[in-house]
Amino acid sequence: MGLTLRDFERAAKRISGIIHETDLDFSSTFSELTGGEVWLKCENRQKTGSFKIRGAANKIGAMVERGEATPVVASSAGNHAQGVAYAATQNGIRSTIVMPRAAPIAKVQATEGYGARVVLCGDCYDDAYARAMEICEEEGATFLHPFNDYEVMAGQGTIGLEILSQLPTVDTVIVPVGGGGLLAGVATCIKQANPRVRVVGVQAEGADAVVRSYREGHLTESENVSTIADGIAVKCPGDKTVELIMKYADDMVTVSDNDISAAILMLMERTKQIVEPSGAASLAAVLSGHIDVKDRKAVCLLSGGNIDVSVIHRVVELGLVSRHRRLKFFVRLNDAPGSLMKLLQVVADSNANILTINHDRMCLSLTPSEILVHIGCEVGGQHHADTLIENLTAAGYSPTLE
Amino acid sequence: MGLTLRDFERAAKRISGIIHETDLDFSSTFSELTGGEVWLKCENRQKTGSFKIRGAANKIGAMVERGEATPVVASSAGNHAQGVAYAATQNGIRSTIVMPRAAPIAKVQATEGYGARVVLCGDCYDDAYARAMEICEEEGATFLHPFNDYEVMAGQGTIGLEILSQLPTVDTVIVPVGGGGLLAGVATCIKQANPRVRVVGVQAEGADAVVRSYREGHLTESENVSTIADGIAVKCPGDKTVELIMKYADDMVTVSDNDISAAILMLMERTKQIVEPSGAASLAAVLSGHIDVKDRKAVCLLSGGNIDVSVIHRVVELGLVSRHRRLKFFVRLNDAPGSLMKLLQVVADSNANILTINHDRMCLSLTPSEILVHIGCEVGGQHHADTLIENLTAAGYSPTLE
Repeated sequence: MGLTLRDFERAAKRISGIIHETDLDFSSTFSELTGGEVWLKCENRQKTGSFKIRGAANKIGAMVERGEATPVVASSAGNHAQGVAYAATQNGIRSTIVMPRAAPIAKVQATEGYGARVVLCGDCYDDAYARAMEICEEEGATFLHPFNDYEVMAGQGTIGLEILSQLPTVDTVIVPVGGGGLLAGVATCIKQANPRVRVVGVQAEGADAVVRSYREGHLTESENVSTIADGIAVKCPGDKTVELIMKYADDMVTVSDNDISAAILMLMERTKQIVEPSGAASLAAVLSGHIDVKDRKAVCLLSGGNIDVSVIHRVVELGLVSRHRRLKFFVRLNDAPGSLMKLLQVVADSNANILTINHDRMCLSLTPSEILVHIGCEVGGQHHADTLIENLTAAGYSPTLE
Repeated sequence: MGLTLRDFERAAKRISGIIHETDLDFSSTFSELTGGEVWLKCENRQKTGSFKIRGAANKIGAMVERGEATPVVASSAGNHAQGVAYAATQNGIRSTIVMPRAAPIAKVQATEGYGARVVLCGDCYDDAYARAMEICEEEGATFLHPFNDYEVMAGQGTIGLEILSQLPTVDTVIVPVGGGGLLAGVATCIKQANPRVRVVGVQAEGADAVVRSYREGHLTESENVSTIADGIAVKCPGDKTVELIMKYADDMVTVSDNDISAAILMLMERTKQIVEPSGAASLAAVLSGHIDVKDRKAVCLLSGGNIDVSVIHRVVELGLVSRHRRLKFFVRLNDAPGSLMKLLQVVADSNANILTINHDRMCLSLTPSEILVHIGCEVGGQHHADTLIENLTAAGYSPTLE
């Protein structure tokens, strides 16, 4: 079995009352940076915050049309959970989502808010999956797989139809990949409708099972996955998704967590948008040069926006460091009243804001009357940092950068 | 002199090729939270990242129409700088922007990127302003005031026309206020077009000169301003803006920096949008209950999105603390090898991630064999924090929250 354009058209019709047709925004910033024409397909602003609602809505809608109005069950602590919960409620179907016990309370509440019953079980995804299977058996419910299902893929692929209608002259579409449902759907849809358009998938370096499957020509699993992009951290891709990807995708690449982190920050600063790590993988591939879009008309699919506050915090912190907005140095001081104050006078006169101060007396090179003082401070950038170091040197200190 | 609907219509036509007509997005989240219908007018996604481009484009466009093709000068390290630079370049006019020396390098580069010459001068806005005036004299250039100018206000007021056309049944429009140009323009436009619509202005508590002017019935200045919302931290409002605001605005309120900070975080999490502090003041007034929109159809004007990375960092950090995602406590330990490790075992078993550890031996209540250890860690929320404290207590420790 496969998927035809009819399947995508039917899916689009079926889910049209439930999902948003999301914006396709032209980005002058990213176009200038790359020498191409870069467009952003904003599924981060989709209902429930990601594209997953499309697959869930098509699957459940098709079940209802077939008269299979059974309750549905899914195991997920992420976007699939919210997509299934919302789509089920919209179709008048009961849903149960099984999450690991450690699931963030915000995710639990959001999923319950969309009308699902949430069951917390076990320490990891596998435990939650096992419990979900039990519930299906006990309650005669249907398990909804997050990606390895043709009706789910057909739903995700409706994004392809939207892109072709919003930008008929597009020549490259770049798609984040975890289990492969989104890429399988979008590539199958777009290549059948217009074989001229290149469709490229992007995975995180630390979770690249689909890339390896694609290159090796057969389904390959990963023993361990490790990436900031939790939404695409999948060990076992689907046999159905990988088969369609091998048939329709033009290429696949990987990006590092630092590439992803930089892309998230650029999206925040330049386009005023929040995108989750997996959702930013597509743009990360372009900005890091892994996909060349010079003189091309490229759509980066931003697949979701559900990023945890603590992840935003870490991404922004890394960005501040890499842009020289944080400066760490230490100096040797006389261990006497007033010597720290004199040092801080120079820092204050240089208009730098102090974040941390630590005293170190346990160092072999120190004499009994000396201490090392470690300072962390906030500066305006490289130039400001240089000025501060010059001022300290001029005042007789020998600052060492850390 | 004042402003008529004709002025706004002419301005809208004049600037239509330069600005975006920004989205007016319905927010189901904020509607549910308030019991009203809340819409967001997204000027944070406007060209140059804020509404300021509208006033600048109208002013410069009108000058060109009158044959006054002189270079223009502005003093600003903020949104006005970028608006003037972009609008001037689009009209084929040379522009000079004077900024204080401490202006962030990103702002300088962005403004130069829009085609302006940037002159750095002095330590504060007043120095930059003085230099801008000198340049006008030396070069026969025209100074562009950021708000106290009818043609600038007419440009800002075009947002009013867009709102009325995008949501004809709107009944409340909420607008952030600094010098008053945006509110004067929007209120004058909307109240003349439809007196039924309430227009309310919002200032930061720490910079409320327009609110006080409005309440006292005459122009009032602030000696000091202090707020996270740098875009609306204005000491001296305009006589022209305040006059129109007194005539047309229905009410004015203030919000705290904490209200603003909470609104920025909610916008990031729930609508996947970056809004600068001044731009979030309107929604902050609604979410904090300072403006009641129950059963009303309210538009919050998000006036800009140019927020510095370090401000995002602080807002997110505060958010993590207020949501119990950060836990600080101290315990009394035996000052002996292995005692810290045993404590950390309990923390690790509770699945909390350690951020900081500090030893304190300088405390009157300690015996020679004791130390205090201060721990800062990352937890999933209140429930996880409670569990960690319970586990520590069960293991024989007496943790004290900090």
